[in-house]
Amino acid sequence: MLEKLLTPASIAVIGASRKPGKVGHAILANLVDAGFQGEVVPVNPAGGEILGVTVYRNLEEYGGKIDLAVIVVPLMAVKDAVREAIGAGARAVVIITAGFKEVGEEGASLEREITELCASRGVRLMGPNCLGLINTHHKMNASFANRMPDKGNISIISQSGALCTAILDWAAGRDLGLAKLVSIGNKADLDETDFLTAFADDDETKVIAGYLESIASGDAFVRAAEAAAAIKPIVIMKAGTTASGGKAASSHTGSLAGADIAYGAAFKRSGVIRAETFEALFDYATALAMQPLPKGDRVAIITNAGGPGIMAADAVENMGLHVATLGEGTATALKAKLPAAASVGNPIDVLGDADPERYAMAVKAAQEDESVDAIIVILAPQAMTSPAETARTVLERVRMVEVDPASPPKPVLAAFMGGKDVMPARQEFVASSLPDYPAPERAIAALKAMVDYAKWRQRPPRVVTRFPVNRRRVERIIARHLRIGRLQVNEAQAKEILGAYDFSVPAGRLCTTVEEAVEVAGGVGYPVVMKISSPDAVHKSDIGGVRLGISDAEEVRDAFDLMMMRIKRKIPDARLDGIYVETMCTPGREVIIGMKRDPQFGPMLMFGLGGIFVEVMKDVTFHLAPITADEALQMLMGTRSYALLKGARGHAGVDLKAVAGTLQRLSQLATDFPQIAELDINPLIVGEIGTEPAVADARITLAEQRIAE
Amino acid sequence: MLEKLLTPASIAVIGASRKPGKVGHAILANLVDAGFQGEVVPVNPAGGEILGVTVYRNLEEYGGKIDLAVIVVPLMAVKDAVREAIGAGARAVVIITAGFKEVGEEGASLEREITELCASRGVRLMGPNCLGLINTHHKMNASFANRMPDKGNISIISQSGALCTAILDWAAGRDLGLAKLVSIGNKADLDETDFLTAFADDDETKVIAGYLESIASGDAFVRAAEAAAAIKPIVIMKAGTTASGGKAASSHTGSLAGADIAYGAAFKRSGVIRAETFEALFDYATALAMQPLPKGDRVAIITNAGGPGIMAADAVENMGLHVATLGEGTATALKAKLPAAASVGNPIDVLGDADPERYAMAVKAAQEDESVDAIIVILAPQAMTSPAETARTVLERVRMVEVDPASPPKPVLAAFMGGKDVMPARQEFVASSLPDYPAPERAIAALKAMVDYAKWRQRPPRVVTRFPVNRRRVERIIARHLRIGRLQVNEAQAKEILGAYDFSVPAGRLCTTVEEAVEVAGGVGYPVVMKISSPDAVHKSDIGGVRLGISDAEEVRDAFDLMMMRIKRKIPDARLDGIYVETMCTPGREVIIGMKRDPQFGPMLMFGLGGIFVEVMKDVTFHLAPITADEALQMLMGTRSYALLKGARGHAGVDLKAVAGTLQRLSQLATDFPQIAELDINPLIVGEIGTEPAVADARITLAEQRIAE
Repeated sequence: MLEKLLTPASIAVIGASRKPGKVGHAILANLVDAGFQGEVVPVNPAGGEILGVTVYRNLEEYGGKIDLAVIVVPLMAVKDAVREAIGAGARAVVIITAGFKEVGEEGASLEREITELCASRGVRLMGPNCLGLINTHHKMNASFANRMPDKGNISIISQSGALCTAILDWAAGRDLGLAKLVSIGNKADLDETDFLTAFADDDETKVIAGYLESIASGDAFVRAAEAAAAIKPIVIMKAGTTASGGKAASSHTGSLAGADIAYGAAFKRSGVIRAETFEALFDYATALAMQPLPKGDRVAIITNAGGPGIMAADAVENMGLHVATLGEGTATALKAKLPAAASVGNPIDVLGDADPERYAMAVKAAQEDESVDAIIVILAPQAMTSPAETARTVLERVRMVEVDPASPPKPVLAAFMGGKDVMPARQEFVASSLPDYPAPERAIAALKAMVDYAKWRQRPPRVVTRFPVNRRRVERIIARHLRIGRLQVNEAQAKEILGAYDFSVPAGRLCTTVEEAVEVAGGVGYPVVMKISSPDAVHKSDIGGVRLGISDAEEVRDAFDLMMMRIKRKIPDARLDGIYVETMCTPGREVIIGMKRDPQFGPMLMFGLGGIFVEVMKDVTFHLAPITADEALQMLMGTRSYALLKGARGHAGVDLKAVAGTLQRLSQLATDFPQIAELDINPLIVGEIGTEPAVADARITLAEQRIAE
Repeated sequence: MLEKLLTPASIAVIGASRKPGKVGHAILANLVDAGFQGEVVPVNPAGGEILGVTVYRNLEEYGGKIDLAVIVVPLMAVKDAVREAIGAGARAVVIITAGFKEVGEEGASLEREITELCASRGVRLMGPNCLGLINTHHKMNASFANRMPDKGNISIISQSGALCTAILDWAAGRDLGLAKLVSIGNKADLDETDFLTAFADDDETKVIAGYLESIASGDAFVRAAEAAAAIKPIVIMKAGTTASGGKAASSHTGSLAGADIAYGAAFKRSGVIRAETFEALFDYATALAMQPLPKGDRVAIITNAGGPGIMAADAVENMGLHVATLGEGTATALKAKLPAAASVGNPIDVLGDADPERYAMAVKAAQEDESVDAIIVILAPQAMTSPAETARTVLERVRMVEVDPASPPKPVLAAFMGGKDVMPARQEFVASSLPDYPAPERAIAALKAMVDYAKWRQRPPRVVTRFPVNRRRVERIIARHLRIGRLQVNEAQAKEILGAYDFSVPAGRLCTTVEEAVEVAGGVGYPVVMKISSPDAVHKSDIGGVRLGISDAEEVRDAFDLMMMRIKRKIPDARLDGIYVETMCTPGREVIIGMKRDPQFGPMLMFGLGGIFVEVMKDVTFHLAPITADEALQMLMGTRSYALLKGARGHAGVDLKAVAGTLQRLSQLATDFPQIAELDINPLIVGEIGTEPAVADARITLAEQRIAE
């Protein structure tokens, strides 16, 4: 779809300049220097020749057809240049020029006009305000970057042009090649989602790495990323994570579900590997590009020094991987071939005087051991050590297995420590696609990313259960609220909505008179609970608006009068729906489940233990809706307090599947009704196996309806 | 004290060899190559000359006096060599030879003999099984390392010789100098503590960096580290952190207080900066060696690219530092001098085309802004960027302030991103002592270490309160237990001990008959609590051995008989002390305080909220005893559940000072009685301000007494 952009046969550079130092010169020079095989058509009203290439005054003078136009003219001339490019048959346009949306409303308006112009002609637009793009396999450098990387198999998507240049310089420093690099700038048309899809299908790309500050469309991103991650790994660093999340939220879920948590949930759902730092982005990407995925998380550590071996074992455990228990055969084999003082446990200590052969032998033993999934090779340069030769011998050993179809290859990552003596070894490794890290901890963090991604790839197929529900009833209740502009749904109505979706709601009704309350209490059965219902009393219990365990008609009367009196005294102007009377739930463990609609990624479900666990410990998990039964269980297991649900010493466990089922129902409700902005069921009372979780209290906030433009 | 070791006038190399590749050759060659100014005396029975230096058959032949002997002879000849060295007047001996304690009992025995020999003659011993030592300021390389570092101001203590070589190679790769490097090997005599003390007094050492796997003596380490850290920063990486901690602990405190937590507590107490990774060790050490300490935690970020600026701001917030709010004057000054599109907020975006002057101007503005404590300078190499020139200009600016006594200097750390184009800038920085990092996150992690250390330096003086207590009574109870070899102290006796230290213990007594129980209950006042007391019933409530809220004599009788019956049925052979009857505490918030004596660092105090907070959430804090009032409060504030103590919505807070006071009493008890191995007060019931925390249950375990050898 984007082939005219990524692999054009002819490129016009509109705004080509003869002045070195000008961006319009740099782009032309880069195209020429990279040895682009197609037609390069510089356009400049002055005509003439630049760098030996004929310059046309305009594309009409050139007369031929172009695939791609790179535009570097001043802001006010950009629109005409786009028109000219389209006239010459361009299917894709890259606008380098800045001064658009990022500057203010005037620029944004111009940007919109240009975007519409392109869209109306079916022309794809990259930028504006970007660095351009590079395709090493097409010998194309249509950017004003200082460097052209070597051919490689990592493709980069970056929302920051400056970061592209840092990435290129970083890759040069490590002698690492890249496949494609796109600087997406203001994302007027093409954005991260388009390139995820394009790179997923690109045979020259093995890993997609991205730097993003925002995502244009959450939904489209999740779909594209999930599809792409099923084919190849995606590593993304998302900046701006600490930007304050939901500030004026009306629910617990809302106040806990910040934007960063939504990104995390979206990445997790779609198999995107998240890099927390700039270095991690490349640490992970190189490991994934260079080595096969591990089958499990059992790590063998080979080292010529005790200290770094301990460091590595620490890191393996801290990151939740496992130090492999080597098979007996391995120990015997190692013992036979290593000096007596060597450790044949794991870490395998080949000793300070280890020669390359001893390393190769240890790697072979680990490769052949069925209880090992991945191998970390550590070297500290000592008096007898030959780092480069050791690297070569290890590489030979690794290649031997790669060609042996009987034994599936295991990932091998190196951590050759030091700065100068180990440099030749590092170059050997990178040239032969074995990732090398300056410290064991970084190698193991990269391995952890591989393990997580491999697990995601092996996840069971996602089947979302659809429960039979009364959707019509919910539609009616919501419509009624929206008609009168009431966005807070009171407890009675919220419970009616949940009841329609077959949540287990205690029998109850909103009452406006004492006599009605007594009648309802008798009907639902004692003991009952009474709660004030007013849109102006958000924290009901703070004003004495909740009474539990009421056991007869007289208590109902007393409670009714008392609550009415109190609310009038404390909030004189309160709008009052009445008093909600319901049968009291069987006591059990209190949990909270909730939903917040993220502006980017849609409904996000939350789960946590109730009360202080949410309010103080913030011990909650999130997942994008819709969720599967397995994902619902994962949400329970992801909390630190899970042990309490499962049943700790002296406490019986709860019906975990029933809680998961309730989360799935909530998922369905949230997916069915985009009108619901936030929802808290707090507490949901859960009991032992065989019981249905009961909705003790619920609150729903509807979204402000946008008026059609 | 160690000057004959660190700055000897003459060095004998006993076991000098003429064969290149041999360790005995490498050491001599290193001494010669480093240009050692004193006398070098190679000793080898073959005599002759090596590398132009006369070799003596033995030290008698040499005849002169030596300060230091480096011994590289075979294992069985080491003792004689040591004797020979002592005979020639050596005050310090370095044993390179391996095969001692690290190999087995035979080696350990030989090591002890040699250590005693040295001790009896007042000679200090480094090693055995080590790499040797380096002192760049003394032009001495008495090691078999491959490299001699340049002069610098970081001194290294390493328990791993191999890691020393990795460190030297790493320093060479960064063109970084070192002051001293010691490889402490088996630590037969000299250990980390000796070198902490020596380097604290060493004018050429500005920062002490260490790699440790164990600590020889916890007490001595804490004292030496605290004294040294008051003079200069100490950064230590401690490996082996995940090694399983207390396995068979008899208390909650014991099971939560692993060895790694003890190291953490010891480092925190003594001001040691802990590096979690190998890279962090040097990231922190270089920052501390090169830049002044910040006065606070408000960070200004200067960048020529938006993306990295966001990354840096994220990292600042994630690490608990603050993105400074720039003063108004700064904004005005920046606005006047930066292009219109530049951001004069923080991060200060000097734009992609920033020249060196623009950077210098931004640095100057941040230096002069009183709301800034530290400055991070970020550069992404773009088309117009001159990294090296920018580095030089920034350095000039930084030096300008350094010589201005009116404005105290602020730390400046750089993150010039990339690999090749930025390399010349990195060299400029390191040559002029400005730390540079490959990514903003690492610069900011180093800054965080500086901020933490600066805070430790500014901490209030430690004053430990001593309460008047009845120490004799506790001595008697403990002696009675130890005489009969009973290490578990029952609740009644534990409460007597605590009572003697003025903890608030509910009135109560151990009863052996029903009538006694009724009498005691009447005496202490209803309602009472009854609890079975048996060394064989550790989890009393699990066997129905606890009854609360007993309100009259008849209930006492029933409970007594029931408990007796139950324990006989459930644990037929149980030894039975009786039933403990006490008045019931006023309900309140339940917390746990405890103590575990760490084999290395002595009594470690624990605090946490009771029940699930400890058992499930593991939300506890630790501190080495003795503690001050301030440290006790810090322990409370360090828990995630602190908000509950302070008083969250709808809940009154507790008397925090009273809880802190109870912790201080516990600290005194733990310090006074090394016989106490573990202690749990669980729960301690704490109430609102003005109340004394009450010991509802307590358990004490005494230490197995070692028989004098």
